Amino acid sequence: MKRRNFIKAAASTGLITSTTLATTNASANSKTIKWKMVTTWPKNFPGLGTGANSLAKLITQMSGGRLKVKVYGANELVPPFEVFDAVSRGTAQMGHGAAYYWKGKTPAAQFFSAVPFGLTAQEMNGWLYHGGGMELWQETYEPFGLIPTAAGNTGVQMAGWFNKEIKSIADLKGLKMRIPGLGGEVLKRAGGTPVSLPGGEIFTSLKTGAIDATEWVGPYNDLAFGLHKAAKFYYYPGWHEPGTTLEALINKKALEKLPDDLQSIVLNACKIANQEMMTEYTTRNQRALDTLINIHKVNVLKLPDEVLSKLQTLSDEIVNEVAETNKITKKVFKSFKTYRDSVKKWTDISELAYLKSR
Amino acid sequence: MKRRNFIKAAASTGLITSTTLATTNASANSKTIKWKMVTTWPKNFPGLGTGANSLAKLITQMSGGRLKVKVYGANELVPPFEVFDAVSRGTAQMGHGAAYYWKGKTPAAQFFSAVPFGLTAQEMNGWLYHGGGMELWQETYEPFGLIPTAAGNTGVQMAGWFNKEIKSIADLKGLKMRIPGLGGEVLKRAGGTPVSLPGGEIFTSLKTGAIDATEWVGPYNDLAFGLHKAAKFYYYPGWHEPGTTLEALINKKALEKLPDDLQSIVLNACKIANQEMMTEYTTRNQRALDTLINIHKVNVLKLPDEVLSKLQTLSDEIVNEVAETNKITKKVFKSFKTYRDSVKKWTDISELAYLKSR
Repeated sequence: MKRRNFIKAAASTGLITSTTLATTNASANSKTIKWKMVTTWPKNFPGLGTGANSLAKLITQMSGGRLKVKVYGANELVPPFEVFDAVSRGTAQMGHGAAYYWKGKTPAAQFFSAVPFGLTAQEMNGWLYHGGGMELWQETYEPFGLIPTAAGNTGVQMAGWFNKEIKSIADLKGLKMRIPGLGGEVLKRAGGTPVSLPGGEIFTSLKTGAIDATEWVGPYNDLAFGLHKAAKFYYYPGWHEPGTTLEALINKKALEKLPDDLQSIVLNACKIANQEMMTEYTTRNQRALDTLINIHKVNVLKLPDEVLSKLQTLSDEIVNEVAETNKITKKVFKSFKTYRDSVKKWTDISELAYLKSR
Repeated sequence: MKRRNFIKAAASTGLITSTTLATTNASANSKTIKWKMVTTWPKNFPGLGTGANSLAKLITQMSGGRLKVKVYGANELVPPFEVFDAVSRGTAQMGHGAAYYWKGKTPAAQFFSAVPFGLTAQEMNGWLYHGGGMELWQETYEPFGLIPTAAGNTGVQMAGWFNKEIKSIADLKGLKMRIPGLGGEVLKRAGGTPVSLPGGEIFTSLKTGAIDATEWVGPYNDLAFGLHKAAKFYYYPGWHEPGTTLEALINKKALEKLPDDLQSIVLNACKIANQEMMTEYTTRNQRALDTLINIHKVNVLKLPDEVLSKLQTLSDEIVNEVAETNKITKKVFKSFKTYRDSVKKWTDISELAYLKSR
C-alpha cells in the first residue's frame, strides 16, 4: 500500500492497516486465543450485522492477532433468540444483539435498548457511562454469568410505513402492525394489534396485506428491504425507539481469563463499535432518505402532534406498569427516569434549541 | 479488588483495572516505548485536560504498558499555542487541543473544530468518519508531518454570560465580548468588539467590567470558573459552537514507527476519547445547570429568534468569505457545506422532530 493510500485508509476507518515493520509487535511471542461471537442478525446484515463484524475485526486488530474473534450470523451456530443463553453457558464467548430481546429473562433488560419517549443516543450514552446505567445493566445480567455493554446505536428511528394516513389516534384502532417490545404494547393500548415478525418476513407481509403497517429501523435499512414498494406513507419521528442501543454480551468467565490488556481491548472495542454504528447511520440514513424522497417519491409525513401526545401518555402508563414487575426492573426504571427527567432540561436548551434555530 | 468491585469499576469506566492473572500479557516480552503528549489545556483542566489524561491512560492500558504516554499541561513543556509546532517537529509525539487554534497555519483548520450554525457532535462525527471529513483533515495537516484525529466533543455550548439583556441584534453593538474564532468575527460584523482571553483571565475581566460579556463552554465548565458571580444573564443556544470537536495531533513519523497493533490502539483510543468526552459533558452539564438554576438562581434565557436569525445570516457571510482564502480551505468548506445541507434534512425529521415531541 502506498503511503498516501495508507493514510487515506487510516482516515476513513480510524484504523491503521498498513504493513509497517513491527519492532515490538505483541503477536510475535504470544499464543492466539480464539473466541466465537454469535449474533441475532443475519450474517452481514447492513449496519447491525456489519457492525458486529467490525467489532470482531477491531478486537483482532488491536490485540495484534492475540485474540481472534469469529462472527456467526443468526442460525449459523445458534438461532437468533438463543444468543443470550449460548453466551451465558459459554458455547460462545461473545454475543451481539439488543437487550429488549431478553425481556423474557427479565423485563429490566428493555431499558437498556429502547424505551418509548426515552433517551436519544447521546443521552443513552450519558446514562450508561456516567449516570449509573452500566452498573445496573451488569447487575441485571450478573445472575446469568454475563457482562453486557453498549456496542452500537441506530439513533432516532422512523415511526414506520403505513398504507393509510394517520390523522388521529383513532386511526390506530384495528391496525395490524409489526412493532415489537414496549412500542407494541403502546399500540395495543391504542386499540391496534401488534405483531412480531423477523426482518425477512416484513416486506411480503406488508405487500400481501397480512399486516397493515410496519416499523423497522430508518431510511438506510428500510430502503434495503424495499419497504417503499409495499406502503405509501412513511411517518416520523420514531417515538417508540428514539436511540436504540445495541448490545455486546460477554461471558464473564471467558473475559476474566484474559490478561488485563486484552480485557481492556475487548471492552473498549465495544465502546468504539457503539460510536461507529451511530456515525454510520447518521450518514447513511440521510443518503437513503434523499433516495426515498427524490427517486422513489415516498410521502414522508410527521405524525400529528395530537397523536404523539396521546402516544406519550400511553407510553408512560405502560413503562410505569412494567417497572412494577420485579425488584431489579423497579431499580433500573428509577435510575432511567431520574436521568431522563434531568437530562431533558439540558437537551432542551442545547441540542433542541440549537436545532430549532438552524 | 473484590470481584464485585472489579465489575463495578469495569462498568463505570468501560475499562478493566483488575489484576487478573495474565496468561499472554503482551508487556512481558516487549520493550516499553515512551511518548509525550503536550496539551493546550492547563494540567487536569475539567473535561478538556482530564479528557487528555484519560486518552493517555487508555493507550497505556490497551497496550499492556508497551506504549506509555505522559501528559504535559500548557506551559509545562511548551506554551499552549505551540502544541502544533511541537508535535510537528517531534518535540512531543502527540498533542491535544482544538483545530481552530491553528487557523494561522491554514484557515481550513477551523472547519474541524467549530463553525457557527454548523454541525452538532453527532453530525460532526458523521462527516469526519463517513462523509470524507477525516481525509480532508489529514490532507490539511499533511504538509506539517501531522496526523490529526477527533479526540473529544463538548456538544452544543452556551451562547454566554451577559450583564444586560439581549433583546435585539442592536444590543450587540459596542459590546466587548470574549469570543474567539469565527464566532468572534460574527460579533464584529454585528458591531461588537471580540476579544481573545485565556480561560484563567475571563472571570476577573468580566467581574471588573474590562469586558461586558463572555462565552466559555457550558454549565459544567462555566460553573467551575464561577462566571455566575460576574454576570447576570446566561444565554442559549451556542450558535457559534454547536458541537466543538477536540483534536489529537500525532507526529506522523512517530506513529509509523509503531507496530500495527499499537498504531491501531493509538488511533482507536482517540476514537474512544471522542465519545467519552461527549458522554461526560452530557451528564455533567445537566447537573451543573441544575446547580446554576436552583442554587445560584441564574437567569437562563434564550436568545430571541430574530437575533439568532440575523446571526445566522452574518455567519454564512463570514464562513463563505473564509472559504475563499486558499485552495484547501475552499475544498474543505465545500465538503463541510454539502454534508451539512444534506444531514440537516435527516436531523430535522429524526433528532429535532423527536425532541420537539417529547
